[in-house]
Amino acid sequence: MIGHGFMGAAHSQGWRVAPRFFDLPARPEMTLLVGRNAGRTEAAAQKWGWEQTETDWRGAIARDDVDVIDIVTPGASHAEIAIAALEAGKHVLCEKPLANSLEEAEAMTAAAEGAVGSAMVGFTYRRVPAAAFARDLVQSGAVGEIRQVRAVYLQDWLVDPEAPLTWRLQKDLAGSGALGDLGAHAVDLAQFITGQKITAVSGTLNTFVHERPLLGHGSGLAGTATAERGTVTVDDLALFNSRFDGGAVGSFEATRMSTGRKNALRIEVAGSRGTISFDLEKMNSLGFYDATAPATRQGFTDIMVTEPEHPYISAWWPAGHMLGYEHGFSHQVKDFVEAISEGRQPEPSFADGLQVQRVLGGVERSASHESIWTGTES
Amino acid sequence: MIGHGFMGAAHSQGWRVAPRFFDLPARPEMTLLVGRNAGRTEAAAQKWGWEQTETDWRGAIARDDVDVIDIVTPGASHAEIAIAALEAGKHVLCEKPLANSLEEAEAMTAAAEGAVGSAMVGFTYRRVPAAAFARDLVQSGAVGEIRQVRAVYLQDWLVDPEAPLTWRLQKDLAGSGALGDLGAHAVDLAQFITGQKITAVSGTLNTFVHERPLLGHGSGLAGTATAERGTVTVDDLALFNSRFDGGAVGSFEATRMSTGRKNALRIEVAGSRGTISFDLEKMNSLGFYDATAPATRQGFTDIMVTEPEHPYISAWWPAGHMLGYEHGFSHQVKDFVEAISEGRQPEPSFADGLQVQRVLGGVERSASHESIWTGTES
Amino acid sequence: MIGHGFMGAAHSQGWRVAPRFFDLPARPEMTLLVGRNAGRTEAAAQKWGWEQTETDWRGAIARDDVDVIDIVTPGASHAEIAIAALEAGKHVLCEKPLANSLEEAEAMTAAAEGAVGSAMVGFTYRRVPAAAFARDLVQSGAVGEIRQVRAVYLQDWLVDPEAPLTWRLQKDLAGSGALGDLGAHAVDLAQFITGQKITAVSGTLNTFVHERPLLGHGSGLAGTATAERGTVTVDDLALFNSRFDGGAVGSFEATRMSTGRKNALRIEVAGSRGTISFDLEKMNSLGFYDATAPATRQGFTDIMVTEPEHPYISAWWPAGHMLGYEHGFSHQVKDFVEAISEGRQPEPSFADGLQVQRVLGGVERSASHESIWTGTES
Amino acid sequence: MIGHGFMGAAHSQGWRVAPRFFDLPARPEMTLLVGRNAGRTEAAAQKWGWEQTETDWRGAIARDDVDVIDIVTPGASHAEIAIAALEAGKHVLCEKPLANSLEEAEAMTAAAEGAVGSAMVGFTYRRVPAAAFARDLVQSGAVGEIRQVRAVYLQDWLVDPEAPLTWRLQKDLAGSGALGDLGAHAVDLAQFITGQKITAVSGTLNTFVHERPLLGHGSGLAGTATAERGTVTVDDLALFNSRFDGGAVGSFEATRMSTGRKNALRIEVAGSRGTISFDLEKMNSLGFYDATAPATRQGFTDIMVTEPEHPYISAWWPAGHMLGYEHGFSHQVKDFVEAISEGRQPEPSFADGLQVQRVLGGVERSASHESIWTGTES
Repeated sequence: MIGHGFMGAAHSQGWRVAPRFFDLPARPEMTLLVGRNAGRTEAAAQKWGWEQTETDWRGAIARDDVDVIDIVTPGASHAEIAIAALEAGKHVLCEKPLANSLEEAEAMTAAAEGAVGSAMVGFTYRRVPAAAFARDLVQSGAVGEIRQVRAVYLQDWLVDPEAPLTWRLQKDLAGSGALGDLGAHAVDLAQFITGQKITAVSGTLNTFVHERPLLGHGSGLAGTATAERGTVTVDDLALFNSRFDGGAVGSFEATRMSTGRKNALRIEVAGSRGTISFDLEKMNSLGFYDATAPATRQGFTDIMVTEPEHPYISAWWPAGHMLGYEHGFSHQVKDFVEAISEGRQPEPSFADGLQVQRVLGGVERSASHESIWTGTES
Repeated sequence: MIGHGFMGAAHSQGWRVAPRFFDLPARPEMTLLVGRNAGRTEAAAQKWGWEQTETDWRGAIARDDVDVIDIVTPGASHAEIAIAALEAGKHVLCEKPLANSLEEAEAMTAAAEGAVGSAMVGFTYRRVPAAAFARDLVQSGAVGEIRQVRAVYLQDWLVDPEAPLTWRLQKDLAGSGALGDLGAHAVDLAQFITGQKITAVSGTLNTFVHERPLLGHGSGLAGTATAERGTVTVDDLALFNSRFDGGAVGSFEATRMSTGRKNALRIEVAGSRGTISFDLEKMNSLGFYDATAPATRQGFTDIMVTEPEHPYISAWWPAGHMLGYEHGFSHQVKDFVEAISEGRQPEPSFADGLQVQRVLGGVERSASHESIWTGTES
Repeated sequence: MIGHGFMGAAHSQGWRVAPRFFDLPARPEMTLLVGRNAGRTEAAAQKWGWEQTETDWRGAIARDDVDVIDIVTPGASHAEIAIAALEAGKHVLCEKPLANSLEEAEAMTAAAEGAVGSAMVGFTYRRVPAAAFARDLVQSGAVGEIRQVRAVYLQDWLVDPEAPLTWRLQKDLAGSGALGDLGAHAVDLAQFITGQKITAVSGTLNTFVHERPLLGHGSGLAGTATAERGTVTVDDLALFNSRFDGGAVGSFEATRMSTGRKNALRIEVAGSRGTISFDLEKMNSLGFYDATAPATRQGFTDIMVTEPEHPYISAWWPAGHMLGYEHGFSHQVKDFVEAISEGRQPEPSFADGLQVQRVLGGVERSASHESIWTGTES
Repeated sequence: MIGHGFMGAAHSQGWRVAPRFFDLPARPEMTLLVGRNAGRTEAAAQKWGWEQTETDWRGAIARDDVDVIDIVTPGASHAEIAIAALEAGKHVLCEKPLANSLEEAEAMTAAAEGAVGSAMVGFTYRRVPAAAFARDLVQSGAVGEIRQVRAVYLQDWLVDPEAPLTWRLQKDLAGSGALGDLGAHAVDLAQFITGQKITAVSGTLNTFVHERPLLGHGSGLAGTATAERGTVTVDDLALFNSRFDGGAVGSFEATRMSTGRKNALRIEVAGSRGTISFDLEKMNSLGFYDATAPATRQGFTDIMVTEPEHPYISAWWPAGHMLGYEHGFSHQVKDFVEAISEGRQPEPSFADGLQVQRVLGGVERSASHESIWTGTES
């Protein structure tokens, strides 16, 4: 595994726990953790249970006893590492967003398509049982012809103007702001659940807080703010409408400045026969409205997605016993390991990741045309 | 009162009930009901308690014993009636939308500004206690600097492609579809609660069902569908983003084809200090997130807006006893009668209604530019 | 109508509004309001729209132009008035609880059974559409064999120990405290929805605040507290378990001291095939769990009980437009007038009211045996 | 660890994961798994990550390299194992209920009090962050003087009369039915949150399904039903009221036959200043009503208990990222290991477990007196 921030902790938990609950065709070994700073990498390896450490990712890729490379670094380094790993014949799991630029994402996808190893991008929320079940419901026809998609991903950890200027607020490191960080999840999940691809977008980006305190050292979330200020070069809010190839029309919002919303990835899909409503803050349930039920009994059903018949659940606890955030990472390991063992392309593929990048790129191009706004004075 | 459809029933209930619960400075008398069809008008008058009937609205306006004209006809006739009534010195309450065209709305506003009578437009949802209280919270500073506005108005009575082609689906009679019918409410309420005006919009309109059965006779909601089909000339879905003059950025959706949503007028206003969340389907409560509370105690508070200290409530029942849809019409009568008696301009004024029309007009102009959409292929 | 407190306002609204929305077989006239204090009765008549007033209820009963007597006085006077009215051949609607003592309730029931007029007791919550629909669901077999009933009626207007000692806190006037005031509703509604009668109970009564300020004058809710204190002689909390004649087992709680609960009459009925969940604070919807649905789609459905196919709804507004507290009183008028016109016994009858009194009496007898409590030390 | 059923899986996950997220003063080693059947124990050890296996628990206790004994067998064997382990100087973690009889529980408590090792009983739900935070709120005075406690623990896996007769339905193995299985959790959690002890109870036990299919072999949940039937000797429903030593009055219900409720452990604590509402099916949040807030802003606040300031949370993920069922077992390991290292008595102690048993015993004694029921006929 290359990188060991917040995502590294989550991925480590996935590698450790998945084999305990799922009968995997191969048993993962947590061999090597790579980070630039030797001391911090060693501490992370101790904490998260990796056997060895290294400071150069090229060294990891060169090793024969490493079959899988798990990339959890910031997006700016994804392309170089992933392409090298694929060229070395490794299987690659790469955190989202696939890359910070379309060019990089295209290169990665090309590398994946010619590679012997498998390549998967880490849109983990597809592995939340309720989200996977939402897709099942759509595929079963329970929603009918999809008309509207409403997707938001709202957090609030940047509401305070004094929250520091981390790498996530710098365009050269993060590529974009809420758009790439949160919007990417919303786009992928909306496409996953509906089974439709977005073909056109129209949107706007907005920055509410233009200057924030610089970090004293490091660029992690945990850094300390200083008196000096720097410029926020990414969006605080992305708002875009979209057309899907199956005829659906959708609205999207992504922001890390929505007071009171902590991790509200919400997708509502309304169709001719029914509607589904997913909310990551209520991740163990799914709302479903069945318009084919008798008129007096229609309503949104709050389905607790914890039955053994629901996706991934039979490996865990009895009905009504909740799963949490990190379970998705175990599911990701399961799906990835199974695909590798069976020689199948794991999903979401790098091509899927690239397609999401293209949607986000379309939003950025659209947002740069101020002409789309029409004044309300006649 | 001129007109006697669904809105006529609601307004009648307002005129009848308001004086029983509120101490009004003048007691309204339900003198005269006007409708084109003598028989149906007579039946409506019997049912809703109007003393006399007439088939010509000009006759009503000419009467000396009529002080107030309440217009609940379709939008196409609003301008002519309202202007004539104002010129005759009457007080005018006009249902929303103010008119079907900007030109008409401007003429009505001009007439209102020079009139001796008062003129009010019927955005009744301002009178839902929870909505009025939401505005109070914003004005008190509880939300801080507003950043995001999310407004949707979702219904589902047109989901079925076999639902007939009523006047509400014909552009020449209705002006627009969900945009004017529902979007007007959302825009007015969002501006009312935030205290900010929308200055620019960018949007799209979509029609999902292009042909529907013609009605056999009449154009009411209750007409019978025939085998013949006609063309839907209005939008089924309006989706638009907006900028407010106070710096807020908002998203709007209006549709009558969202399966499972019956009357979901939802407005969320997120600011630097708090967030409020209103939902007409839960009209007796308001969500409020107070970001100034201690960190461990923050959360959305479900405020039951039924305390005597809340707007309009002290006239009704003890705490916890719910109000319904038609109470807003009693509140409208109260506010209108009080404004007339005190010689104040009632709110929302015709100018407020015109401003909403301008926003909707902006959406239509924006939606006509297909260039706003950006393809997602690079 | 005899009496004009809070209940008088609600009943007046029922008499006034019901004929506007329902096609009644007879049109009620609001002829006469009776109250002991001439001035206050005259004011109430003006406010609520009664044509004449009287200070002696016997005079009202003696009048030939009065066909119906509506009794909304405190429970202590119900028996005398109702029996006299029935003996005079009037139809009688009597607010709950039927009486303050079993003896009175039995006498009233005997009088009703021999009378030419109809007699109904005012358990209005049966007329909340969602409650009536809950009964329909049970009768249709959707819940199967009922096993558990959970019923609470929680309010909080007595939480403050300084809330004054109104007649509702005095045993000689009110009969009991939360038990009769709120528990009566819970018992009636539970029996109504389940279609089963309670045959045995085991319970306890508790008083948390033993002394409260005396009222300066009058005994209404609106009286002013003084420095002097009096003894609370009724229960603040009634807690009892019950057995139903159809095999169900139930738990009940009634209290006016449950902080944060304003009008929480909640009934949950769990059976072999399904469960229904009613909450008066969300009175326009009903929870329903259908255990016969496919395993992956089971969950509590939040049925918005506002469809024209639901009880009482077709007379009112389109789907999704909410009804409030007082609509139940219009429904009560409708059902009462229809039963009278058709010569049917209206429900709930005095016998139903008596049966509720017997249940409450059983709770009081049970609560007086301290032996029911078992210490937890071995 | 002795035993390896459902609880063994949960405890194993606790031992494995806790040291990765918490900085423990000692690192647990998963040395030895004990089960009667060698093959099944070996398979469980492989699956859950235990190094060695043994079929005789006495052998485990005899080993010098074992410091801690974790007992997850059915209740009938708890006393013998726990006492032997304590006598051998081990630290003991024993799943709830402490024992199947009061005598055993008393002997265990006596053994614990004289032991050098620490003894803890596994009421894991105390370690759900929202439950621990509920206790903090009560202790801070936010609820004021507690008046009512409402506690239910509802599941539905025995609704089907064809669900087989496992050991959990046999009195000699399980001690009691829903009372001990679920009621024990409700009692412990209610006492934990309120900080009050139950001193008297009055209750009833009911069995709805008296015969169920016998299991073909084994007695696990996973056994296969046969055509033969056996008698259910435990309760399907326990319903009891209670008095607490601090003046609170409480109602309790425990059942595994409440259709639609999967794991609904709900505790509501209402006091003079506020109310808290916990629901294990919404385990990441806590309802809190603050009656000291301004009147217009009161309401139940849905506190997402995922902030770093909340109990246990700082070790896990950012705000809004959910924890699940098994996290409580990591918290239990943390608290147990810390108490051992610091030489403190861990909580809940065996004495706490004994006190819960006494409450349950009181319910059983109370339920055996049919005189507690009062007929409703006068």
